[in-house]
Amino acid sequence: MTSLKSLSLSWSEEHFRLLDQTLLPHEEKWLEIENLDQILEAIIQLRVRGAPLIGVAASLALATFALKGHEEEKLEEAWYKLRAARPTAVNLMNNLDSLKPHLGHKEHFIAEAIRLFREDVELCERIAQRGQEYIVDGDQVLTHCNTGGLATAGIGTALGILVKAHQLGKRLHVYVDETRPLWQGARLTAYELKKHDIPYTLITDSMAAFLMQQGKITKAIVGADRIAKNGDFANKIGTYSVAVNCHYHKIPFLVAAPYTTVDLECPNGDAIHIEERKAQEVIGKMAPLDAPVYNPAFDVTPAKLVTAHILDRSFN
Amino acid sequence: MTSLKSLSLSWSEEHFRLLDQTLLPHEEKWLEIENLDQILEAIIQLRVRGAPLIGVAASLALATFALKGHEEEKLEEAWYKLRAARPTAVNLMNNLDSLKPHLGHKEHFIAEAIRLFREDVELCERIAQRGQEYIVDGDQVLTHCNTGGLATAGIGTALGILVKAHQLGKRLHVYVDETRPLWQGARLTAYELKKHDIPYTLITDSMAAFLMQQGKITKAIVGADRIAKNGDFANKIGTYSVAVNCHYHKIPFLVAAPYTTVDLECPNGDAIHIEERKAQEVIGKMAPLDAPVYNPAFDVTPAKLVTAHILDRSFN
Repeated sequence: MTSLKSLSLSWSEEHFRLLDQTLLPHEEKWLEIENLDQILEAIIQLRVRGAPLIGVAASLALATFALKGHEEEKLEEAWYKLRAARPTAVNLMNNLDSLKPHLGHKEHFIAEAIRLFREDVELCERIAQRGQEYIVDGDQVLTHCNTGGLATAGIGTALGILVKAHQLGKRLHVYVDETRPLWQGARLTAYELKKHDIPYTLITDSMAAFLMQQGKITKAIVGADRIAKNGDFANKIGTYSVAVNCHYHKIPFLVAAPYTTVDLECPNGDAIHIEERKAQEVIGKMAPLDAPVYNPAFDVTPAKLVTAHILDRSFN
Repeated sequence: MTSLKSLSLSWSEEHFRLLDQTLLPHEEKWLEIENLDQILEAIIQLRVRGAPLIGVAASLALATFALKGHEEEKLEEAWYKLRAARPTAVNLMNNLDSLKPHLGHKEHFIAEAIRLFREDVELCERIAQRGQEYIVDGDQVLTHCNTGGLATAGIGTALGILVKAHQLGKRLHVYVDETRPLWQGARLTAYELKKHDIPYTLITDSMAAFLMQQGKITKAIVGADRIAKNGDFANKIGTYSVAVNCHYHKIPFLVAAPYTTVDLECPNGDAIHIEERKAQEVIGKMAPLDAPVYNPAFDVTPAKLVTAHILDRSFN
């Protein structure tokens, strides 16, 4: 019997469960996924999140339905609905596209979903192995956003490198940017580091520079949502400020991501379109309800500020 | 009849009211101050805040009690309790000390309290007049924390400069750092700018660098809690990150404060002690409740990153 387990996903021929990430870090509630509505709701409500994990979760949901004996026609209908569930999630579409040819053959279909899970685990492992070489015993590493096991089937990307270094016995202290406006650092990265028993300190995003001034940060490591051909990259808003501060304080600034993040069609950062999100995320409960807001989801960091791009294979 | 009015204080021989700043920006509730318990509670619960305003409010409360016919002994008892209400508020102690010699003479006592209000108004005015010369038509100015009329009896310090420039007809757009962890930008600066009808945009602290990269910030202006002899200064946490980002993007970085902020006994920033505050301010509702936190209330910016120190008189 195959049994697959990650930080927020558990699958076997007999069950499929997802950790409801909207309740983290205060509550660990596992959702039993038994039908199409449940997995659609989990994806749309961001109960399962992180581009790689969404693709893997949708694939394993379909495998579960196949195991329950769904006919090809019903499975195909679910396939279409899932593929459209989050239009910007490239991994979701890629994973489902690689499942499609097997729709008519239950065993192959399930085997492919299992392979996709394992592929993501191996991808993370390769990034972590390559990346941990940059980490030395005693490093005090600044992170931004969440790039760990909650976003992938495996150990994670940027955060996975720190987990790997820790597992190899390197002593680390991680400084966690809370990551406004959506708190991925405070909510998710802090949760993961505690799970892994890695010492960490939570800070507001505005404190990172002051820590650097005091010599408390020896390295910074972040993920990437899209990397241009010249090495410029887009990542969670706030990343660029970390990069500028690292540059000023002469601190190595590392970027880790799967090679699939590299977009060779995109010549440089100027060509990356930045999504703006709702004002309410910034306003929250504190600001005037009608406050004019600028809320870019990402920013762009030029390659010249990057010490190393860490991918699962070499850049070019 | 004397009538004194600021953004959050209203006083005459017949009334004394304070705006409850803990309810801003969502509710404007004026507190009628009629006895000692009320003003003590307002100071201790931060309903009235901002070092200059606390000193002025305590003085005017005592003037109100004198007008109500309190005997010298009772007034002196109130004086002692008020002077101890916030041990770190230097202005509170300074203002009350200058009231003390007049305790036995009702008219002089009241006149001195009124003079202290007007003195703060004039101080702000001088800072604003000197500072507005740095602001040109069309400027897009980044601010951090709250340094406006809510913290003083007058127009404010750093924010007062922008209000003055606006009143003089210079077109401005203000980018407001929300200022984690206590949200002074989101709660108070946004409220004040709306009151003054000055166009502004609220951002998270982590977005400022990205705006600079896009050429959207032409200047940054902040306040100061303490300025060392060499020009290094302490201000709300996050100020240093703004300074580093201004330096990298070649954007003028201005500091405005009353001359009383300059501590000639303090040779440089290394000698400034930084207060650490409670973890709960950073943890809020988002992080694990037991998350290890670093929460310095201030950071130190070296003089070399400051384009100009704007005081009510020349530095030396």
